[in-house]
Amino acid sequence: MINYPLGIKKERSRVHPAQAKSSCNPVEFGKRGMSFESDINATNEYYLAHNIAVVHKKPTPVQIVHVEYPKRSRAKITEAYFREASTTDYSGVYQGHYIDFEAKETSQKQSFPLKNFHKHQIEHMKSVLKQDGIAFVLLHFSERQETYYLSSSFLIKFFEEKHGLKSIPLAVIQEQGILLPQATIPRIPFIDIIHSQLGGDSHS
Amino acid sequence: MINYPLGIKKERSRVHPAQAKSSCNPVEFGKRGMSFESDINATNEYYLAHNIAVVHKKPTPVQIVHVEYPKRSRAKITEAYFREASTTDYSGVYQGHYIDFEAKETSQKQSFPLKNFHKHQIEHMKSVLKQDGIAFVLLHFSERQETYYLSSSFLIKFFEEKHGLKSIPLAVIQEQGILLPQATIPRIPFIDIIHSQLGGDSHS
Repeated sequence: MINYPLGIKKERSRVHPAQAKSSCNPVEFGKRGMSFESDINATNEYYLAHNIAVVHKKPTPVQIVHVEYPKRSRAKITEAYFREASTTDYSGVYQGHYIDFEAKETSQKQSFPLKNFHKHQIEHMKSVLKQDGIAFVLLHFSERQETYYLSSSFLIKFFEEKHGLKSIPLAVIQEQGILLPQATIPRIPFIDIIHSQLGGDSHS
Repeated sequence: MINYPLGIKKERSRVHPAQAKSSCNPVEFGKRGMSFESDINATNEYYLAHNIAVVHKKPTPVQIVHVEYPKRSRAKITEAYFREASTTDYSGVYQGHYIDFEAKETSQKQSFPLKNFHKHQIEHMKSVLKQDGIAFVLLHFSERQETYYLSSSFLIKFFEEKHGLKSIPLAVIQEQGILLPQATIPRIPFIDIIHSQLGGDSHS
């Protein structure tokens, strides 16, 4: 099953990321998703501009079937399909350390559905951890306006041991994860958490 | 100017990577490029399978303009265009260290054209180096059947200081870079070089 990436909706509806910031006003479902994604992208831009970290979202994987090469014009892809991502969406570097994460959102209030993560993404997280990479997920509860940092090592354990459950209860995320502070700039300050987990001073 | 990624040709002509291995036999130009790319991909698969490193090629960036959602069928992209990559093609992790590289090929024999690298790729390499990431390029001379490892720090310096030159002379690459050994498995053993540069025992 292919998850249509939120970035596509953005391009189709031509909503500028600045217009799609999260707020307390009711927003359309599609825009809520975009808002979380654009908040992360804005955070990454902030980190890059301030030499704090280099993190990029990987392009949406697309299987290209047919391309036309019109004269005096750029190549046009006329048939293509979304492919399932084989890795996580975000990767980068912070002070030499490899960072790897997936960002997901739910409108549920009391638990986070596991179907947001594919088996091969879990496998990818395992491989990254074996190489001592920093692997985690950012879980956004849109109704609660809360974002949690959860280590991939815990997610993998839960995914494999609790396979009877279809979602992670919020209470478990609150116990095992870290609630990100409500911040303005950057919006999703995940580097603060990595920094303190690496033994640096906590920024909070 | 958009560089049409070699991966596209592969998908269009449906050549299996295993059929496209480099050899001493004369091959079509298109297939030469694919061969180098598929050699790198095969190397990355080898590293992944043997828990040596986790390195992936980023998907080709595509700007999606129109998508059709037929009933009882998967979404079909009917209008899209190639976008210029804002980062390098490959990134990953080796023993906790962030790895970032670009792989390029030339049919020239005595120099490597600088036009293979875009200004924003050079900027990306600078950002990665500021974060103590391991950044380099793999330069493949198809006619010579030689691949060189060249640090991004040298490439950046050359790019900025020697902007009168349109290419890096082979002699400079031979002096500043490292010739990769002709290997069978994996084909492009770049991790050996990183390993020895990090202070580990050289595998050569």
